[in-house]
Amino acid sequence: MAAMEIDSTTCEHGLMGRLFHWAKALSGKIRTNMEVLIERIMKLARDDPRRVVHSFKVALALTFVSLIYYVRPLYDGFGVAGIWAVLTVVVIFEFTVGGTLYKGLNRGIATFSAGGLGLGAIYIASHLGEAEPVFLGFMVFLLAAVSTFIRFFPHIKRRYDYGVLIFILTFSMVAVSGSRVEKIIELANQRLVTIIIGGAACMVVSIFLCPVWAGEDLHKLVALNMEKLANFLEGFGGEYFKLDEEESSGEAGVCSKDKLLFLNGYKSVLNSKASEESLANLAWWEPGHGRFRFSHPWKQYLETGGLIRQCACHIEALSGHLNTDIEVQSEFHKRIAEPCMKVCSESGKALKELASSLRAMKRPSSFSAHIQNCKAAIADLRAALEASSPDSANLVEMIPSIAVGSLLCDISKCVEKISESIHELSDKANFESAKSTQSSHIIHRGSVKPLTGDTRHGNDDNYVHVVVINVNSTSSGASLP
Amino acid sequence: MAAMEIDSTTCEHGLMGRLFHWAKALSGKIRTNMEVLIERIMKLARDDPRRVVHSFKVALALTFVSLIYYVRPLYDGFGVAGIWAVLTVVVIFEFTVGGTLYKGLNRGIATFSAGGLGLGAIYIASHLGEAEPVFLGFMVFLLAAVSTFIRFFPHIKRRYDYGVLIFILTFSMVAVSGSRVEKIIELANQRLVTIIIGGAACMVVSIFLCPVWAGEDLHKLVALNMEKLANFLEGFGGEYFKLDEEESSGEAGVCSKDKLLFLNGYKSVLNSKASEESLANLAWWEPGHGRFRFSHPWKQYLETGGLIRQCACHIEALSGHLNTDIEVQSEFHKRIAEPCMKVCSESGKALKELASSLRAMKRPSSFSAHIQNCKAAIADLRAALEASSPDSANLVEMIPSIAVGSLLCDISKCVEKISESIHELSDKANFESAKSTQSSHIIHRGSVKPLTGDTRHGNDDNYVHVVVINVNSTSSGASLP
Repeated sequence: MAAMEIDSTTCEHGLMGRLFHWAKALSGKIRTNMEVLIERIMKLARDDPRRVVHSFKVALALTFVSLIYYVRPLYDGFGVAGIWAVLTVVVIFEFTVGGTLYKGLNRGIATFSAGGLGLGAIYIASHLGEAEPVFLGFMVFLLAAVSTFIRFFPHIKRRYDYGVLIFILTFSMVAVSGSRVEKIIELANQRLVTIIIGGAACMVVSIFLCPVWAGEDLHKLVALNMEKLANFLEGFGGEYFKLDEEESSGEAGVCSKDKLLFLNGYKSVLNSKASEESLANLAWWEPGHGRFRFSHPWKQYLETGGLIRQCACHIEALSGHLNTDIEVQSEFHKRIAEPCMKVCSESGKALKELASSLRAMKRPSSFSAHIQNCKAAIADLRAALEASSPDSANLVEMIPSIAVGSLLCDISKCVEKISESIHELSDKANFESAKSTQSSHIIHRGSVKPLTGDTRHGNDDNYVHVVVINVNSTSSGASLP
Repeated sequence: MAAMEIDSTTCEHGLMGRLFHWAKALSGKIRTNMEVLIERIMKLARDDPRRVVHSFKVALALTFVSLIYYVRPLYDGFGVAGIWAVLTVVVIFEFTVGGTLYKGLNRGIATFSAGGLGLGAIYIASHLGEAEPVFLGFMVFLLAAVSTFIRFFPHIKRRYDYGVLIFILTFSMVAVSGSRVEKIIELANQRLVTIIIGGAACMVVSIFLCPVWAGEDLHKLVALNMEKLANFLEGFGGEYFKLDEEESSGEAGVCSKDKLLFLNGYKSVLNSKASEESLANLAWWEPGHGRFRFSHPWKQYLETGGLIRQCACHIEALSGHLNTDIEVQSEFHKRIAEPCMKVCSESGKALKELASSLRAMKRPSSFSAHIQNCKAAIADLRAALEASSPDSANLVEMIPSIAVGSLLCDISKCVEKISESIHELSDKANFESAKSTQSSHIIHRGSVKPLTGDTRHGNDDNYVHVVVINVNSTSSGASLP
């Protein structure tokens, strides 16, 4: 009996214990999942706090429009049509001002024109007697087919896609509701007023309450992409050539660990076309704001973006060389390291200068010194190549270094093209010219000389030759053939 | 008097004449514009005839749904809510089956759940007396803010963006319409039935009438992208090395003019990420069809697509070398021409094989011979480099050729990675294995030998050496360091 009692208590304890453990495990799991979810939400909000603000803006506009229902006098005025104001707010409120204006204006104009056309169709149909549904059905079929096809035109798709959709929608709804014309006019009037109220609420909240301008985002995206490439280039030199710290030039060798984090940043640049184009399309709808005029040259940003992507492609090809370990560094590898690292760092600096002048909306100026330095470094590289006398055995060893050098030359050409494009942009957008940079420009130009001096350690006979090429390079832009 | 008469007739003639000319010019202008427009429409239709079919499908579904209004017994049953069927058709009918299912299912589920929640909110509010509008307003504010924020989650954005939008929309509309619960239930019932009718009409027309499957489009896009790269590679060798026709190997040198047209085709591959991702997202919604099962590995297509884009990046870097004119072809340039062209043509053939086996949904097999040939050609290239003994003067001349060789090696590695990815895809998707290709495989493997023989014209001493490397290469995958 005693044994049985003990047994049952143990069993009960065992069951309770298991239940307790199970509940503990479950609550632990739920807590972990909740923590993960909260962490994700916090990250999403931290990455771009404007997301949180946007959520509250939508909620605010929607609650405001709901007032049309709650405040009775208004309700009596608009009837059930007030529900269209709610619908309008939900579907046209977009993250950017451009997006909201695009949808709002398209919706407004399409509703108005399709409504008018629908009324005309109903008026004609009302005189046709028995043939009325056939005529209206045919009109719906015809307009739906034509409008759907029109949406495939690239230009229409880019700017008026939503408008054409709303056009079919409104026309079908008006034609199909098929009651008497007078009743429809009253209905359409109510609906149009409520849609205008909804649309206006969205636009006002979107523009005046912490606005998110698509144009500004595009502007910053292009500058950011240049900075990402610059980070890669500044980090690459030190990483690839892995010289001893005494040998490497200060700027490129230091903090390569931090830079390693940036080395993969360029990858997102490769796929930035879609977002750039959509931002440029939305920016087209935005009114002038801050330092952006109404007719800001958004198209030029796309051209610059294309050149930046081309440069990113060359960098992608270059980054493949980072993964191959070169255990024995040949003499040749060491000799071209210095000019190659100079090309990297100067291209990177030029890009950073261009990015920062774009951010500040100033005419870029001091970058040209970096481009000159870069050209000088390419001339040095060429000299280093001419100075080296390989036998057939180490030509194979030299290949990766030569390929890297050639890619760096291509990249420096890309950077030059980008700088020209940014110049064109600053002409078109009337950027201010930065005044105080002329002096730093000259100082930079002076820094070309010490670099040429450094190449002496390779082959003393070529020193004069190098200087000659270097002088040429600053005027004619010498590069590897 | 006579003089005056003549004068007035001349004047009249002059005026009439000018009017006539003006009318003629105007009609000519209108005719030209119309011709341009018609030409554009025809081009749009010719490029993808499914666009025309899609337009008629939308029109058909819309006209069918309009019947709900025109046929009186139905009209009496559904009331004004029938207009929701029209609205549903217009907004959910997308070009692909996946798009229509994505929007239709999202809309259906969101309407149902938000409607239920809205009814609950109204039920609670009806017991609150004076506080009713405050409670409902607060609920709308809260849910709108939360739902809008949720839309920023990448996973939600990809799959359920439209559903969340419709959720906010429906909840606000139900909560805002704020009448008695019974009336709302009746209204919601009607609305739900009409939405189901509209949605079902879209889905049926979309699936059973000339369906456009997003998955199939993705499948074809990946194959097409590989073919574009293959076209470039097959054309590049002949274009860049511009050898005399007697010297160049038959396949790569012939019809280079036709190929020139294809040389820019690869550029669209660089920016294909966005369309691939959207197609993969839509394909996820599609039921099994044809040779595609329900759980077809669409994600693997994205991985393959990424590798193809990486290869396209290297090709972009390579294409820069096409524009530089090499007037004097060095001995070295000529010597490496043959293996380089072989790498080009074999990589191109491997890609074409992979593309055609993907199109046929067969397990790729015969491509591996091309990859072996490619590796052999790289070994030849290495041998040609080892055989050459440059002095310092022509090392600079050799640089572009060496850079091209190095890029071609990178490209051949990319092609190998692509082939592995396609293999993984055919494993995951259970592609049939092609049976009759084993024999052609062996024949191709035999074709490695003649190639090594060809390199003899460079340097007879190296013949044995080349063969040794070549034998190694077929087993260990030798490549440039």
